Amino acid sequence: MANYLVDLNADLGEGFGAYVVGTDEELMKHVTSVNVACGFHAGDFMVMARTVKLAKKWSVAVGAHPGLPDLQGFGRREMKVTPEEVKSMVMYQVGALQAFLKDAGMHMQHVKPHGALYNMAARDLALAAAVAEAVKSVAPEAVLVGLANSELVNAARSMGLMAANEVFADRAYNPDGSLVPRHIPGAVITDPEQVVERVFRMVYHHEVIAVDGSKVFIDPDTVCLHGDTAEAVALVAALRNGLTREGVTLAPIKTVLASKGL
Amino acid sequence: MANYLVDLNADLGEGFGAYVVGTDEELMKHVTSVNVACGFHAGDFMVMARTVKLAKKWSVAVGAHPGLPDLQGFGRREMKVTPEEVKSMVMYQVGALQAFLKDAGMHMQHVKPHGALYNMAARDLALAAAVAEAVKSVAPEAVLVGLANSELVNAARSMGLMAANEVFADRAYNPDGSLVPRHIPGAVITDPEQVVERVFRMVYHHEVIAVDGSKVFIDPDTVCLHGDTAEAVALVAALRNGLTREGVTLAPIKTVLASKGL
Amino acid sequence: MANYLVDLNADLGEGFGAYVVGTDEELMKHVTSVNVACGFHAGDFMVMARTVKLAKKWSVAVGAHPGLPDLQGFGRREMKVTPEEVKSMVMYQVGALQAFLKDAGMHMQHVKPHGALYNMAARDLALAAAVAEAVKSVAPEAVLVGLANSELVNAARSMGLMAANEVFADRAYNPDGSLVPRHIPGAVITDPEQVVERVFRMVYHHEVIAVDGSKVFIDPDTVCLHGDTAEAVALVAALRNGLTREGVTLAPIKTVLASKGL
Amino acid sequence: MANYLVDLNADLGEGFGAYVVGTDEELMKHVTSVNVACGFHAGDFMVMARTVKLAKKWSVAVGAHPGLPDLQGFGRREMKVTPEEVKSMVMYQVGALQAFLKDAGMHMQHVKPHGALYNMAARDLALAAAVAEAVKSVAPEAVLVGLANSELVNAARSMGLMAANEVFADRAYNPDGSLVPRHIPGAVITDPEQVVERVFRMVYHHEVIAVDGSKVFIDPDTVCLHGDTAEAVALVAALRNGLTREGVTLAPIKTVLASKGL
Repeated sequence: MANYLVDLNADLGEGFGAYVVGTDEELMKHVTSVNVACGFHAGDFMVMARTVKLAKKWSVAVGAHPGLPDLQGFGRREMKVTPEEVKSMVMYQVGALQAFLKDAGMHMQHVKPHGALYNMAARDLALAAAVAEAVKSVAPEAVLVGLANSELVNAARSMGLMAANEVFADRAYNPDGSLVPRHIPGAVITDPEQVVERVFRMVYHHEVIAVDGSKVFIDPDTVCLHGDTAEAVALVAALRNGLTREGVTLAPIKTVLASKGL
Repeated sequence: MANYLVDLNADLGEGFGAYVVGTDEELMKHVTSVNVACGFHAGDFMVMARTVKLAKKWSVAVGAHPGLPDLQGFGRREMKVTPEEVKSMVMYQVGALQAFLKDAGMHMQHVKPHGALYNMAARDLALAAAVAEAVKSVAPEAVLVGLANSELVNAARSMGLMAANEVFADRAYNPDGSLVPRHIPGAVITDPEQVVERVFRMVYHHEVIAVDGSKVFIDPDTVCLHGDTAEAVALVAALRNGLTREGVTLAPIKTVLASKGL
Repeated sequence: MANYLVDLNADLGEGFGAYVVGTDEELMKHVTSVNVACGFHAGDFMVMARTVKLAKKWSVAVGAHPGLPDLQGFGRREMKVTPEEVKSMVMYQVGALQAFLKDAGMHMQHVKPHGALYNMAARDLALAAAVAEAVKSVAPEAVLVGLANSELVNAARSMGLMAANEVFADRAYNPDGSLVPRHIPGAVITDPEQVVERVFRMVYHHEVIAVDGSKVFIDPDTVCLHGDTAEAVALVAALRNGLTREGVTLAPIKTVLASKGL
Repeated sequence: MANYLVDLNADLGEGFGAYVVGTDEELMKHVTSVNVACGFHAGDFMVMARTVKLAKKWSVAVGAHPGLPDLQGFGRREMKVTPEEVKSMVMYQVGALQAFLKDAGMHMQHVKPHGALYNMAARDLALAAAVAEAVKSVAPEAVLVGLANSELVNAARSMGLMAANEVFADRAYNPDGSLVPRHIPGAVITDPEQVVERVFRMVYHHEVIAVDGSKVFIDPDTVCLHGDTAEAVALVAALRNGLTREGVTLAPIKTVLASKGL
């Protein structure tokens, strides 16, 4: 039964100064882990302090969500950065979030790169290794979360770090296991029933049906949900209820990995 | 003899991206502690990584040098910030530097606010308390360095933190113990002999002659030197030699405090 | 009848990157002038391009809304800046917005400083003069908008610039003509009827009842409305309708000034 | 004889806040045009104000030097930006510099993209067109300067803008006319005699010897020199003297283009 545990995670703390994004507290009622922006692509020291306090209140596990130094682009624009730059930018952001966790008497459960950094580290081994080195050095007890079956997960495991395979509840997959880019029609799945069915199939049967109808092997440790709209929160709640009803236990990433002996 | 120990500190790691400031490595040969910029008023994740490695190479004790979020103003422009903002901005920056120290297998010896934050925390009790709370929460083993006899030192000690009184080797003092502002003629002392004599008097006799000729009580734990010019490095070397010749032992801040039973 | 013209203005284009603020297009249907953020306290080059295009579509007059270089603080935190810095930061931002207006075949109607810069220029003559010099140099045909009866309006007029007295529709006034700070109870007036009545009294009778019941002389050229919430848009619409019903003509700032022979 | 005119240009105003780069005033004594950073990859409103005043003092023609929004990377890291983003970021920066030129009673002679933006616009037609559209819209009288024979020069000319072919005095060329990347040995030529000889050959004979010994056609309108070191200033002076001695007339870009009937 160990395989029937899975984590639900969401990106939070993505405001900046006067800018507010999403409904962080609503989301926290439904997910088991949250990824907190660290001031580069979003978030600032005030937002981080508030977000960590909320996470404590709702007892959700916290991870760092480091991104490229590009607030205007929300960390979604790829930049030519070296492995050395990546290692240092991840260390900086992870360290900054650790301060707020320490202040709240909490631990950092995981680290998950954001946006373009996530995508670059999924396919580029040198950048993946740089992220993993940063985590190993600064938060060796943390789980490194990456795209399922990606270079990032490989790099983390080969370095002896805990790593988690992440899947996306509402995104279509290519036959090679990569995500269909957002601008392509059908890339985002909005029907709650379909979302629940897809995640359930991933968790129980370790497969997802790609856009060409082929089956792709996938064994999710954690499921990512987007929570920046009211509809999104409803979808998160629907997924939580749907999975629970089907006998899937929701638990933080570390518990999921432990249940699998990872 | 405990009083005849003193620390020499300098601000380092103040570059940013392609911008290089000062001659960090030269300075490290002469001082016992360095204050490393943390990315807000100066420094970035690449500069911090390099600076910490240099500090390890030269075996100097490292402290965080958090500043206001104002790169253009180099953290020297006062901003109206709340105690809550100050606490969080210091936690963020201290945490970020801790990551690089952890990577290098080093500890954070001290925290010293920079520029306008330093001045504001010297005279405003609420901001001083905010800085001290941040340090207590995130780096409780670190020494908080503030202007000698200032609110910052008071706040730190009343909270049970180690605190160090800082003096300025090359700056004139007002009768109330504050520094004469830089733009006033005579505010900066450039003659090496005079600098050595003044510091010696502070260390041995616990006094400094203010601009009006009056004597101000001052008991320095650490002496700040500026190192952003070639002349400055020469001055640092002169001070080091002059103090050593007069029987003053130079040692990192924590050693100085320990020798005083603080 | 010349006195019975007034302009309604609102701050717009205050998003940044992925961050969206307010309902700019809704507001544009109701106001006669808009103040566009220029990238320092809010806004960026993409937001500015979009906002100027919208203003063209809805035929509202556009002004620059330069602020302090403090995105995190939304330009609301006072900073110690010199008149020289203020002159240059205003020139920079005004010039940047002029580019987008030129691209759209439009002219810059006015310049109105934002937030802390607005408040500092209202009471500090040297900073007021610096703002006015910047406008005179870069946009001499533009109207400089400042707090009614403030140093900024004085500085602009003494330099031969057109200047407009701004009042706040939903804010309580002190007996000296300054605004009651937001954190004080009663500082913000939310009842639409009361807002209409107050503005009507200002426009027709050149007075506002201060918090102590005294009458303050005020002759508004332009009325500022905040539009960052749905309620705010409703209030703007209510004010527009109320004033029109009472025989007040709404017109852009330059038309209002021309009607007064200013 | 028209071909024997050429412009010498240098990048200036690349400081930021307390950071100083290069010896701007020394360089201005030797070049005929300067490219002024506009606050994105370098420069800020204070640096721009100072640099424009210096350019006026030394009577050098001024151009805008817009870059990617990446101060830490000095605009040298490629970022995935859309043509729409490029158009708006160039408009913003050109407009900002125009303000300082207006204040100084000067005109903008040219626009030359910086660093990664320059390289991207040299090879990507859509980005090249975006830069050209921005210039056409905001500074239609300005010359657009691009890598000789690049897409940027093509895009500008096809849009009816004046365009200038730029060559690099101290850089080795590939057989296809592109620059040998800096990290490859021999990419940078430091011997003054060789630099003068190469530029002279370009100006008189319209050719450069590529790294493989082949001849590449090149007809320079302007020659770029780097001036961020003391040696660089000496090289600029040597080139100026060498070219003058050989009968080449140095003149601002617009004069050079006019002499060629462009």
